[in-house]
Order: sequence, then C-alpha cells, then structure tokens
Amino acid sequence: MKYHARIYVTLRPSVLDPAGVAVQSGLKHMGYENVEQVRIGKYIELTITAESEEAAKQQLDVICDRLLANVVIENYCFELTEISTPAEAKV
Amino acid sequence: MKYHARIYVTLRPSVLDPAGVAVQSGLKHMGYENVEQVRIGKYIELTITAESEEAAKQQLDVICDRLLANVVIENYCFELTEISTPAEAKV
Repeated sequence: MKYHARIYVTLRPSVLDPAGVAVQSGLKHMGYENVEQVRIGKYIELTITAESEEAAKQQLDVICDRLLANVVIENYCFELTEISTPAEAKV
Repeated sequence: MKYHARIYVTLRPSVLDPAGVAVQSGLKHMGYENVEQVRIGKYIELTITAESEEAAKQQLDVICDRLLANVVIENYCFELTEISTPAEAKV
C-alpha cells in the first residue's frame, strides 16, 4: 500500500529559536505587535510504500529519528493517509 | 481573542526541491527504496491576537504574503485554533 506522510519537525519548547525571534521582530517592525511566540519548524511530505499502516509508521519513526529530526533538540510527529489510486502520473 | 496559528509553507509542485532530492537520496543509501516524492517545506507556529477569527485570517494572509512565504515559488495554508484560556505562563 502507498501512504502519503505529512511530517512536522519542531524545536523542543525549551530550545531557543533565533529564526522565530527574527520573524517576530520583523513582524513588529511591520506593525504586527499582536503576534507572539513565533516558532519555526520543518514540514516534510513524502510517499512511502509499505505492507500496512503499522509498518509505514514504524519505518517513518526510524526515518525521523535517524535523518529528519535531531531528537536532542527537536520533536516530530506525522500523519499518514492511504493513497487509494496509483499516482504515477502526477503533474 | 487569542488564536494559535499553524502555518504550512510548501514549494509549488512545479518548483524543483533540491533539499527534498537530497533527503530522498540519503534515504535510498540507508536502504529505504520505498520512499518517494520527498518535499521539504516550513512549518510555523505563532499566537495572534485579533478581534475575530476573520480578522486574524486577514492579517495572517498579509503576513504570509509579505514575510513568511515567497508566493512566486511557494504556496501556504494555515489553521487557526482559538486559545480559550490566557496562556501567559507557558513552560
């Protein structure tokens, strides 16, 4: 089965986020004083082929742990959606 | 009212994603031949104070257009959730 995965990688709450601070400061300069707590993370989409949803989840856990996230400073979570039709000719 | 916004910024489908290609190639080397169509985007969380959900959405549209996304090559979308209790002392 083919699954579409949406993976979110975010900095742990205790870790400083200089990019988020920079964006918040930029927004203040643009007049948006009402925006706070800006945190910037990664959003990854991919297609994974596996025997079952459980197998796909297990593989994604390893992939996130080893490649996509630095688990010392980052958290991750993901959502899986089964792709019903073979999407070989996507434009 | 305070709203928690989750913003997703992704490359338009027609734009090449070298980082995604690099991740896919890395996964192949790790033995994950079953992963395809890797695309890497940004995930931004923030808190916005506005009079109504509609007002928050309008402000976020401008913020995304002007600062968070490059609309020539990127798409964005966001989700808003109302924060019911004042969360001033988040740890």
